[in-house]
Amino acid sequence: MRREVALPHASRLINHGPTVLVSSAAGDARNLMAAAWSMPVEFTPPRVAVVIDKSTYTRELVLASGAFALNLPGRALADLTYTVGSESGRDSGDKFARYGIPSFAGPALGLPLIEGCVGWLECRLLPEPHAQDVYDTFFGEVVAAWADERVFANGRWSFRDDNTELHTLHHLGAGAFAWPGQAVQARRLDPV
Amino acid sequence: MRREVALPHASRLINHGPTVLVSSAAGDARNLMAAAWSMPVEFTPPRVAVVIDKSTYTRELVLASGAFALNLPGRALADLTYTVGSESGRDSGDKFARYGIPSFAGPALGLPLIEGCVGWLECRLLPEPHAQDVYDTFFGEVVAAWADERVFANGRWSFRDDNTELHTLHHLGAGAFAWPGQAVQARRLDPV
Repeated sequence: MRREVALPHASRLINHGPTVLVSSAAGDARNLMAAAWSMPVEFTPPRVAVVIDKSTYTRELVLASGAFALNLPGRALADLTYTVGSESGRDSGDKFARYGIPSFAGPALGLPLIEGCVGWLECRLLPEPHAQDVYDTFFGEVVAAWADERVFANGRWSFRDDNTELHTLHHLGAGAFAWPGQAVQARRLDPV
Repeated sequence: MRREVALPHASRLINHGPTVLVSSAAGDARNLMAAAWSMPVEFTPPRVAVVIDKSTYTRELVLASGAFALNLPGRALADLTYTVGSESGRDSGDKFARYGIPSFAGPALGLPLIEGCVGWLECRLLPEPHAQDVYDTFFGEVVAAWADERVFANGRWSFRDDNTELHTLHHLGAGAFAWPGQAVQARRLDPV
């Protein structure tokens, strides 16, 4: 079900603003946090930005390793997303073990990727100390991407009534998540 | 229907990744473009980031005026959003006149805000030449925000079956937009 996404299509995975799970690892340590604040910044090469607060353990691991992964949870993982976003790995220990979260090693960078997600982007950090310091904004270049072909294929999301558990999550705040309904195809207007 | 949003709640307006319309003005010129790529970067003070490509007329106006506004179109404005995102104001002339787009002057900065949208954020540019140059990323501080109280009140979106035309748009690519269904409230998991 997991298919590689061609790099020119990788930015499409987060084009519509889903909440992501940021996974990271350095030495023997690994961590997972939820992030509502991410966006693509470039299609080719595919580049992204994600906000990683100074208080987070993830930030320490990303700076140590120079890499991070964005995992896209579907609706079925709403509780998991809220849970790992509600506590720090610095306080609670390894969240993967604590919550029994299955993961696999990312083929490109070896980062822990989360089983059951619907999309994955492995990213190399593009070090930007000023943006990191002032805006908590981390830029990265996507070096490999995958998606669950039941909901993303040929560079397109396909949100349908028969795959609602695979729809992405969009955080409204305080653990409330919306998910995309079916899509509408807009048409171009004529000038008045 | 349009109510001011308290500044600590302003980032919530774009927390879930909606596509926005960026409006700008400088001298006698004004413009409007669609942007799928934006995110909050801070709650207090509320700060946002938005990607504005080097080819855009908007970029020229934002750099000249030091300000921009993010307008949040609802489902009813899908065609308008796709249309203004498909051509440059440098080529087609004033899009407001061309497509008969009603606007009003933003109370804080005087920027043209779009009637019929469901949220509005007036932002002062935080000049960051390096991020602008390398990542097309423009940071701004929200100085005033409003929302349509039928769909956003007390700092929260309320996407319901009786207000679907006011649901935000999330661009999947090539003019296909998803919109949020109703929300689910996640719960925290117990450790295994």
